[in-house]
Amino acid sequence: MASMKLNLLGDVAELTRALCDIQSVSGAEGEIADAIEQALKPFSHLTVLRDENAIVAKTNLGRSQQVVIAGHIDTVPVADNLPSKLMSFEREQVIWGRGAVDMKAGVAVMLKLAAELINPNFDVVWVFYDQEEVEASKNGLGRLVRNHPELITGSFAILCEPTSATIEGGCNGTMRIKISTSGVKAHSARPWMGSNAIHKLGSVLERVNEFHPQEIEVDGLVFKESLSAVGISGGIASNVIPDEASVTLNYRFAPSRSVADATENLRSIFPDFPFTVIDSAPGARPGMNSPEAQEFVGAVNASVNPKYGWTDVSRFSEMGIPAVNYGPGDPNKAHADDENVPVSQIYACEVGLRKFLAPNL
Amino acid sequence: MASMKLNLLGDVAELTRALCDIQSVSGAEGEIADAIEQALKPFSHLTVLRDENAIVAKTNLGRSQQVVIAGHIDTVPVADNLPSKLMSFEREQVIWGRGAVDMKAGVAVMLKLAAELINPNFDVVWVFYDQEEVEASKNGLGRLVRNHPELITGSFAILCEPTSATIEGGCNGTMRIKISTSGVKAHSARPWMGSNAIHKLGSVLERVNEFHPQEIEVDGLVFKESLSAVGISGGIASNVIPDEASVTLNYRFAPSRSVADATENLRSIFPDFPFTVIDSAPGARPGMNSPEAQEFVGAVNASVNPKYGWTDVSRFSEMGIPAVNYGPGDPNKAHADDENVPVSQIYACEVGLRKFLAPNL
Repeated sequence: MASMKLNLLGDVAELTRALCDIQSVSGAEGEIADAIEQALKPFSHLTVLRDENAIVAKTNLGRSQQVVIAGHIDTVPVADNLPSKLMSFEREQVIWGRGAVDMKAGVAVMLKLAAELINPNFDVVWVFYDQEEVEASKNGLGRLVRNHPELITGSFAILCEPTSATIEGGCNGTMRIKISTSGVKAHSARPWMGSNAIHKLGSVLERVNEFHPQEIEVDGLVFKESLSAVGISGGIASNVIPDEASVTLNYRFAPSRSVADATENLRSIFPDFPFTVIDSAPGARPGMNSPEAQEFVGAVNASVNPKYGWTDVSRFSEMGIPAVNYGPGDPNKAHADDENVPVSQIYACEVGLRKFLAPNL
Repeated sequence: MASMKLNLLGDVAELTRALCDIQSVSGAEGEIADAIEQALKPFSHLTVLRDENAIVAKTNLGRSQQVVIAGHIDTVPVADNLPSKLMSFEREQVIWGRGAVDMKAGVAVMLKLAAELINPNFDVVWVFYDQEEVEASKNGLGRLVRNHPELITGSFAILCEPTSATIEGGCNGTMRIKISTSGVKAHSARPWMGSNAIHKLGSVLERVNEFHPQEIEVDGLVFKESLSAVGISGGIASNVIPDEASVTLNYRFAPSRSVADATENLRSIFPDFPFTVIDSAPGARPGMNSPEAQEFVGAVNASVNPKYGWTDVSRFSEMGIPAVNYGPGDPNKAHADDENVPVSQIYACEVGLRKFLAPNL
């Protein structure tokens, strides 16, 4: 498998297509990592380091401030949607194919600016990492932070995940809980001899339906919380009153709440239903109050919104680095069979990021 | 496997144990059918007929009235509770073991009286049938009615199913329905982009919880209706708003309602939730107003109650034969791992049935 040669200084849309056409499903990023490494190596203003299938390229300008700009190079499995195609939807040109949105268009913008900006206002750590679309323990960004803690540092981070070229700050936390009800088995001809565990879930669903999602402002952004049932089960046989049933709920909570706060909030909604926490992850404050974030917002001139999906900005948040998402493509098209990114958004992000990093260029 | 010889004219409790000790799980009734056939054949006042593993023994006295007395000879699977044991619970002697309640004690009473009563007041059709504990299509009583419609006739029928030696008349009808809800899939980080099918079940469970069971008098007995959830399911993945969910309900309705009436009643409770009827069976009116039923109640001198479980009395009801349940054993102990029948109830049923069939004996 000969590596395709990537032209970093050409058109960013063409670079996006070239990246899409190197398949890189999570766990098989070798070829695309080779191509990225080879393409970056010739640029003498960058120090290039490889860690398994992650590549870090860093400027060494001695600037007082350093920013991290990161993107993952893996995709979810291909759905018969490669090689990429350039298509016209109504009046809009799009690049169609697996990874176009999530997130090779963003990676293309990063690669082009990494190569081109030899003299940015900040020192920049460009991070291209593997295995973001799989379990958190394999995440390439997490591994880089463990293996090279001195490298992934800065006062601000931008993750080029798709945001339709708007700025999305922070992310909600997430927690899954399981509420189990119990009863007493009986024949369904004489239900009054038992106690029906499924019937008891009625009150749980009622409270979920009555849940008024709070909108909580954090660092200037308004995060909308939510509580959703994602699973329900119960029943033994068609003539038996079931003695066990359960419902699994997913609570998405504002980044101003800790996991402990979120648990406490659920306990106040379900004081009479003991539950178990299946998993949880804290949110990330958007950090929009930091000077770099303000500067970024001013440069990019795009709307600023909260991010609802959980992304790796949380990793930066845990490291104390304010971080935002900013990249081309509609996040609702990520992983979709008809994944496609408007070309205009790729250019918009190239321009926006350049204005932030090198306003005088 | 040599057939055990059954002594029909001895003690009915010992006969119960002997019947229990011939295992006869549904589909494997050959040995017990052989034993019953061989035991009945010597009695010249009976005409004995065999149909697969069902035995019919009939008197031929030319009486103006004929009654059918029936019981099934199969059991649910053995649960390490055979051979039978005679045990003392507090002050009560019981026969412990699979089938003791459901319904070899009843069969023992039938066999003893079939052999002993050579001159009853009515002609009697004694029916011992197979495969009652499995799907209705295999039911031995149903097969006998199909194969020998001229044989299973009479103006009254007694099924010796366990009733704790009380008279239980008729039975509720039963209907199972499935209510499916639909919604729109979405990521659970942005539930407002979708519509949650599980949440919609909340209103269904609420109505089930608010269902006020009607008590409906039919032929002098009060039947209590019920509506129970017997199954619930929904959920795709722990981060997806599910677009499908369903709950299965079991409605037990008074025998005064037809299946169509019952369906209509459910539609009035769930006008906004289309449902499918999974299965249904009409109830059986107790027919306690018939002269034979009145005579039976007078003879037995036991309390008369509605039957809640669906039993084969419905088959008699469909044939236009009023039928009641009357037999030893607590129906709640049927199929239980600790299945056991009080010996006193076996004697009580022997005496009660004898008083009805041969009051002058």
